[in-house]
Amino acid sequence: MSKPLKIGLAGLGTVGASVVRLLDTHATSLSARCGRPLQLVAVTARSRKDRGIKLDGVRWVDDPVKLATDPEIDVFVELMGGEGDPAKAAVEAALKAGKAVVTANKAMLARHGVAQAKAAEASNVQLAFEAAVAGGIPIVKTLRESLVGNEFSRVYGILNGTCNYILTRMELEGLSFGDCLKDAQRLGYAEADPTFDIEGHDTAQKLAILASLAFGVAVDPEAVYVEGISSIAPEDLRAADELGYRVKLLGVAVKTEQGIEQRVHPTMVPKTSAIAQVMGVTNAVAIDVDAAKEIILVGPGAGGMATASSVISDLADIARGTHVPPFGLPSSQLKPSAKLPMQHHEGGYYIRLLAVDKPGTAAAIAHHLAEEDISLESIVQRRPGSHGGDDPKSASASVPVILVTYATNEDAVRRALAAVVAAGVVAGTPQLIRIEKA
Amino acid sequence: MSKPLKIGLAGLGTVGASVVRLLDTHATSLSARCGRPLQLVAVTARSRKDRGIKLDGVRWVDDPVKLATDPEIDVFVELMGGEGDPAKAAVEAALKAGKAVVTANKAMLARHGVAQAKAAEASNVQLAFEAAVAGGIPIVKTLRESLVGNEFSRVYGILNGTCNYILTRMELEGLSFGDCLKDAQRLGYAEADPTFDIEGHDTAQKLAILASLAFGVAVDPEAVYVEGISSIAPEDLRAADELGYRVKLLGVAVKTEQGIEQRVHPTMVPKTSAIAQVMGVTNAVAIDVDAAKEIILVGPGAGGMATASSVISDLADIARGTHVPPFGLPSSQLKPSAKLPMQHHEGGYYIRLLAVDKPGTAAAIAHHLAEEDISLESIVQRRPGSHGGDDPKSASASVPVILVTYATNEDAVRRALAAVVAAGVVAGTPQLIRIEKA
Repeated sequence: MSKPLKIGLAGLGTVGASVVRLLDTHATSLSARCGRPLQLVAVTARSRKDRGIKLDGVRWVDDPVKLATDPEIDVFVELMGGEGDPAKAAVEAALKAGKAVVTANKAMLARHGVAQAKAAEASNVQLAFEAAVAGGIPIVKTLRESLVGNEFSRVYGILNGTCNYILTRMELEGLSFGDCLKDAQRLGYAEADPTFDIEGHDTAQKLAILASLAFGVAVDPEAVYVEGISSIAPEDLRAADELGYRVKLLGVAVKTEQGIEQRVHPTMVPKTSAIAQVMGVTNAVAIDVDAAKEIILVGPGAGGMATASSVISDLADIARGTHVPPFGLPSSQLKPSAKLPMQHHEGGYYIRLLAVDKPGTAAAIAHHLAEEDISLESIVQRRPGSHGGDDPKSASASVPVILVTYATNEDAVRRALAAVVAAGVVAGTPQLIRIEKA
Repeated sequence: MSKPLKIGLAGLGTVGASVVRLLDTHATSLSARCGRPLQLVAVTARSRKDRGIKLDGVRWVDDPVKLATDPEIDVFVELMGGEGDPAKAAVEAALKAGKAVVTANKAMLARHGVAQAKAAEASNVQLAFEAAVAGGIPIVKTLRESLVGNEFSRVYGILNGTCNYILTRMELEGLSFGDCLKDAQRLGYAEADPTFDIEGHDTAQKLAILASLAFGVAVDPEAVYVEGISSIAPEDLRAADELGYRVKLLGVAVKTEQGIEQRVHPTMVPKTSAIAQVMGVTNAVAIDVDAAKEIILVGPGAGGMATASSVISDLADIARGTHVPPFGLPSSQLKPSAKLPMQHHEGGYYIRLLAVDKPGTAAAIAHHLAEEDISLESIVQRRPGSHGGDDPKSASASVPVILVTYATNEDAVRRALAAVVAAGVVAGTPQLIRIEKA
């Protein structure tokens, strides 16, 4: 089999340009390993500016949708991004025209993945997206193929390098969230408008894809509970450290009696766990299954070359004729995703309160927690001023108190805290961070 | 496509029995994910004793070679083990008869893998062995498929749970190698004859397979330099800890100017590195590549169910018609493996000496190292008796000295130590542990 796999590529940003480079520099090895050359025949991009990449002999096509259905190409690589058109229109046109599709577009897949998988199945072509989640980490193939003989109980991970970079610097340097965000923006780790990353939406889209692959549910970002990291204060990271934890923004998909719980939120994980060791922009995914127990993958979650490595992996699969349903199961067999109410979430909780410094405060807090059957693993209370990071104004009249609960449910914790607040024994809003066993 | 994939299974030990169980309990999901049922039709094993597994309707065949060529089966699963017959004869008969083969047999593959890959290619069938290296960790697929767009510079890992268990307990509890080995045997983590594991041969076979997948060299355990962990003393682990390292038995395959260096030996790795965090029987593989940078996979390296998970993954690939050359490249394109002489190895070294406690000793040691252009990163010398773990007899006349060198080459270190020994300024044989950047 030496007929080349002919590739049409839409989008020449960092990832697209890196794909062009890898196809060129690794051509001989790829051809040997795939049994046929991987040949870039046509590209499209927003502008024809010089990107320092070799495009000799590669046709320029102005319209992505036209490229997607170009009679010469076998596979359409979509690296434009954005959940809507032109990416969506082009991918759907390619699938309809019987072209295989490779995409890194998590936003589009999270929103339209099931319909697009259906379209791919109808045309009997591949829709592949290793690059859509966790950059260079081969998590899609691992869930979809390597662990196919397992029942999944949980998949969780650090899926957003921006957030992990910010939390790492906050922890190591004692800086505020705002200062770290500014630095991340200056260094190019965060966007000018960072909301999508820091509020957890990027993680939620990736998690929805992982949950679909692991649990056979339809990919649906609306089924994910989302909470970002902007409320995390340096004193939370300090307290976590003292209690033997680290704070990470995790995406967690877990099988419960009610269904598949999908959630993204700042999470305390034991400092000794593998996931807690993952610092900076690095990503990691941990997988709990029945047969292979616990598998953890760590690697670069972004970057042009790392993401391009995953695109090439998909292209190689297509070149060799590998054929797997996009989400592991035929799309008709994916179960509907439902958002589980977080009130039912069960686990331990970290609570940071500013307790009013007057007689009866401790008793009131203890009383309201006991009323909800919440047991405490740790209580840390410091004298005002004994902790450098706290607000000196409030420190005079109130005392920071850290509570760590044993496993309970979110409803109980929320009710107990509401009662504590109503009793007037705390200043401001209590901070609540979920604890995850890892 | 609903024609079942018909499986003949040879070997009903821990892994074989677990494969039978997974095929039964996960039948519905596997059938949905593979597009056809995975059906066990015939088995063979050394005895017909009751193993607590369901074999209703499964034919018993007495001879593995006969099972391998059984007209009813599509794929032959070899889980008997042993590098020679009957495993080898059965696998080769199956391949010749046009049956796909799945095996967990690292010893056979390390010795006969290239010839067997050639046979598989001649019959145009798959030879798959995810289970042969690192149990449940999907390292074979990751190297062969996921990272196909990368050039590899290094692959290294903890590939033997027995050794990592022993080193972990030695470190955490300050126990001797002998005591930990006895405990590992009692707990079933080490064989009655532990030589194969503790002297590094098991790791070498697995490393040879990983090196072939990563670097396109013919799998050949003879090309691997091998050194085990039996010489490691508690004082080495203590010194490592103080210097910021941990000692692990690593298999390392690294691209050098001379070729692919393959080596297995106790290795000091920085305590903060991901590989250093891997404790107990867990395995891990780290991969350094050009595009995806560094990817690390962590998981169970042994155990019936974990290894069976990898066997099922191979069966699912075969059921879906996935077709990849066994070692990534067509066997005719694998380059010959050559054993690189360790004298050329470059890196840092940890040296532990018992220096004779007399004037001129330090000067003599420093002189001989300087003669070989070896620079020292650290020197630790303790007064006799200040370190609990040393032999009280020798402590009276000699002083433990720990040296850590900057990068140098092994030849220079060996020559310098020989000169130091010849000068009569040390007692006994110096301990030497290579340091690996991780």
